[in-house]
Amino acid sequence: MSPAAPSLLDRLSLNQETVRQWSLPELADGCARAGVRGVGLWRAPVRQYGPAAAARLMRDAGLRVTSLCRGGFFTAVDPGERAAALDDNRAALDEAAALGTDTLVLVSGGLPPGSRDLRGARERVADALAELAPYAAERHVRLALEPLHPMYAADRCVVSTLAQALDLAERFPADRVGVVVDTYHLWWDDTVGAQIGRAGGTGGAAGSRIAAFQLADWVTPLPEGALLGRGQLGDGTVDLRWFRERVEAAGYRGPVEVEIFHPALWARDGAEVLAEIVRRFQEHVG
Amino acid sequence: MSPAAPSLLDRLSLNQETVRQWSLPELADGCARAGVRGVGLWRAPVRQYGPAAAARLMRDAGLRVTSLCRGGFFTAVDPGERAAALDDNRAALDEAAALGTDTLVLVSGGLPPGSRDLRGARERVADALAELAPYAAERHVRLALEPLHPMYAADRCVVSTLAQALDLAERFPADRVGVVVDTYHLWWDDTVGAQIGRAGGTGGAAGSRIAAFQLADWVTPLPEGALLGRGQLGDGTVDLRWFRERVEAAGYRGPVEVEIFHPALWARDGAEVLAEIVRRFQEHVG
Repeated sequence: MSPAAPSLLDRLSLNQETVRQWSLPELADGCARAGVRGVGLWRAPVRQYGPAAAARLMRDAGLRVTSLCRGGFFTAVDPGERAAALDDNRAALDEAAALGTDTLVLVSGGLPPGSRDLRGARERVADALAELAPYAAERHVRLALEPLHPMYAADRCVVSTLAQALDLAERFPADRVGVVVDTYHLWWDDTVGAQIGRAGGTGGAAGSRIAAFQLADWVTPLPEGALLGRGQLGDGTVDLRWFRERVEAAGYRGPVEVEIFHPALWARDGAEVLAEIVRRFQEHVG
Repeated sequence: MSPAAPSLLDRLSLNQETVRQWSLPELADGCARAGVRGVGLWRAPVRQYGPAAAARLMRDAGLRVTSLCRGGFFTAVDPGERAAALDDNRAALDEAAALGTDTLVLVSGGLPPGSRDLRGARERVADALAELAPYAAERHVRLALEPLHPMYAADRCVVSTLAQALDLAERFPADRVGVVVDTYHLWWDDTVGAQIGRAGGTGGAAGSRIAAFQLADWVTPLPEGALLGRGQLGDGTVDLRWFRERVEAAGYRGPVEVEIFHPALWARDGAEVLAEIVRRFQEHVG
């Protein structure tokens, strides 16, 4: 265990989709009992519970909301669909502000049906960021563009690498548009270390683009649809500690959020899953 | 249809895994009847039939063998496994020479069990290329390193981008080690156009690294295991014509090989599948 381990553990945040078997009250209670001090929340359960009530619940449990997942889906060409997507993102920003988080994670969206124009779709992402950035700034929420694994480029997210995410983010001030570094999506890329350095800027939190740091491991075989097969920390091929060291070398000292989507974790007792995550976090990240 | 279409059609090659329902004699006969002049072959059916007999079969049908799939799997750490892999690649080079093809496609291999060291695995690929290059040159066969989609980085191929493949290939003379440009694996990458230009070198076939150009379309959802879900030309999100124009701008005038793995194609009549491929090729590539 490195000497930094205790303070790192204080930065551990649990993304609620990791334990989707838990209701919001169970999540608040479970995290408090486990000594975990941050949670990443998702819009659907928050809206169902009510954003203000969810905010109170987390605050009363001593929890910080480290991010809200997710806005985005910016790539529609149809003006009506596009306007609806922007409205929905403004609602997401309102919800983020109500929860007291400064980070809205954005999944950019895939190609519209029949389209093969990745470049055009990426430009529409930039246009949407330009439209939303002032609204986000008024709410003290940063837009956090997440590059997703290239296997999602067609149907989920046309932003596939950290370099692409930074190319888009750098068109805006660093405190308005940042990026998400998620090990599951980026681990295969031999340029990711250099791009994390680029994201860190000249050092100091003010200039850094790293808005969130998320952990999951890569395990195979991929399930049908490739969506719900993320691995528990330590079960796969990702050098998680290397990533943690790289984002810290780039000046990042924010939350370290565990976000794993896997039916095998959802089928287990949530408290047992969280206890395992804390152990694995200390073993493979700290 | 562009004026170049007739000569492009002469360059069409059918990778035999696209119509794996066909035996080698059916493949030779089916291609000859359809006016297709090239075939990409796979080692297992060729060894079963006998390399010399397969070579004669293709020659008698007027077919050129445009590539042999595949060597590679270079990433083992264990010395015995490593020696076995190199021996197997020498056998593949002998088979390629017997078939009269100048191209052995290489799938580099994934991470050894328990390893998280992508960089080390990529170095072992370079070491294997160094060991095999003289043997390949004696047989007038070029080693064609194929970058596979990043979703295969853990279990199949640690070389995930054209840039990585070129970084490795450029350690060797261009006539000994080239790269494969496969649209299925590379379509999502916004740097691929520039990297195809890099692969073309200073112009002229002598300096070009492009050893093979393969086509398949990207369709979703991905099947379990992500291996057998390639799309028929035109069914997906890849701008195939853009790729063809880029490799031609880089000086490539070699075979254009269609390599689609999909159970839906294998369940159909092979001649019907091939006729559809020829139509789609003219519509989406020519």
